[in-house]
Amino acid sequence: MNAFHKVSVPATAEPPKATWSNCLVVGNEIVLSGVTARKDGVATGGASVEKQTLAILQRIAELVEAAGGGVQNIYKLVIYLTDIAFKDEVNAARAAFFKGIFPCSTLVEIKGLVFPDLLVEIDAFANFTVDRHAQH
Amino acid sequence: MNAFHKVSVPATAEPPKATWSNCLVVGNEIVLSGVTARKDGVATGGASVEKQTLAILQRIAELVEAAGGGVQNIYKLVIYLTDIAFKDEVNAARAAFFKGIFPCSTLVEIKGLVFPDLLVEIDAFANFTVDRHAQH
Amino acid sequence: MNAFHKVSVPATAEPPKATWSNCLVVGNEIVLSGVTARKDGVATGGASVEKQTLAILQRIAELVEAAGGGVQNIYKLVIYLTDIAFKDEVNAARAAFFKGIFPCSTLVEIKGLVFPDLLVEIDAFANFTVDRHAQH
Repeated sequence: MNAFHKVSVPATAEPPKATWSNCLVVGNEIVLSGVTARKDGVATGGASVEKQTLAILQRIAELVEAAGGGVQNIYKLVIYLTDIAFKDEVNAARAAFFKGIFPCSTLVEIKGLVFPDLLVEIDAFANFTVDRHAQH
Repeated sequence: MNAFHKVSVPATAEPPKATWSNCLVVGNEIVLSGVTARKDGVATGGASVEKQTLAILQRIAELVEAAGGGVQNIYKLVIYLTDIAFKDEVNAARAAFFKGIFPCSTLVEIKGLVFPDLLVEIDAFANFTVDRHAQH
Repeated sequence: MNAFHKVSVPATAEPPKATWSNCLVVGNEIVLSGVTARKDGVATGGASVEKQTLAILQRIAELVEAAGGGVQNIYKLVIYLTDIAFKDEVNAARAAFFKGIFPCSTLVEIKGLVFPDLLVEIDAFANFTVDRHAQH
C-alpha cells in the first residue's frame, strides 16, 4: 500500500487556479481526473476522434508512469463521446494503443465536454497490482 | 486478494475483434464494462426500459458469478438512460431484481448509446467482501 | 478494513420505496450514490449551479461524516452538468468548499437529470486512508 499523495506531470500540469488534481495515489489505486486532448488551448488531434483518443491515452500513460506505474496497470476506461457515430474510431485507437488483455471499457454519448473542440474524454482507472501484459 | 485475471462467459463473450474486456478481477474487486441488453444484434427486452434493465442486471449477475462471486457482491450501479421519463421503469427493475440492502445507484440521462435500440446501459461495481444479503 | 454496512443520515434518508442506498462502506471505501441538491421536492440553491453544487458537496460531507470519515477523505468527483456553460460556477463551488489537495474531478455535460430543476449531480468517491488536508 502506498501512502496517499498527489502526482504531478510538468508537461500536463493543472492550471494555476485549477480546482482539481490530475492524479492521486490512493493505496494501490492510481486515481485520475477525466482526461481530454486539450493542450495549450487546442485539441491535440484536431477534428479526428481517433487522434484525440490516442492523445488522451498517451497523456493517461504519462500520468500513470509519473505515479510509478505503467500502461499495464490500466484496467478500465469510461469513454465520453460527443457523437456516437465515431465509436469505430475509438475502437481503432484502443486497438492501436493497448496490448495484452484489454481494459474494461464503458462508452456513452454525452451532450458536450468542457470545450467545443473536444470530441472525447476518458476517465481511466489503474492499479499497481494489475498487469495486463503478463500471461493469465 | 485474488490475482489479476480476465473472466469470460461464453454466452456473452466479447466479439472476436473487441478492444475491451467484459470482466476483470482486480484484488477483491470485480470490474465490469458497461453492460447493455444487446444480444445477437438486437436489444433483449425490445422497447421496454424495464425489460432491458432486467436483461442487463441478469447479464451482470452472470459475469459476477463467472468471476466466482454473486449478486450479493454488487454494491453500486451507474445507470445511463437515454430518456429520463422512464426512470420509474428502472426503479421497477431494481425492485424486482435486488433483495437485501440495495446497491448505491447513480442515474443520468445521456444523449445516446452504442446502438439506437439501446435505451439503458449499466456500469456495475462488485466486490467479493460485500454481502448485501446478510443482516447488518 | 471495515465490515460492509449501510450508512444512514436521517436528514437525507432514502424515500420509503427507494431502490438504492445513499451510502455504503466497502472496506476502506465510502461508496455513495450520485447526489443532487433536491430536498423536500425542490432543488436547494434554485437556478444557481454554484449554489446547487455547494448544497450537494455539503450533503456529500454529511454522508461521509455519518460513515465515520470526513471531507478530507474525498478523493474524486464525477460531475454531471446539464449545461456546460456553467462550468465556472462548478469551479467556484469547488474552490470555496475544498481545502488542501483538490480531489480528482471529471466533468461532463449530460442531457438531463432525474428532475428538471436539477442542474448538476455529483458522484463522489471517498476512502478512509485519504487525507487531503495533511501535507504531502
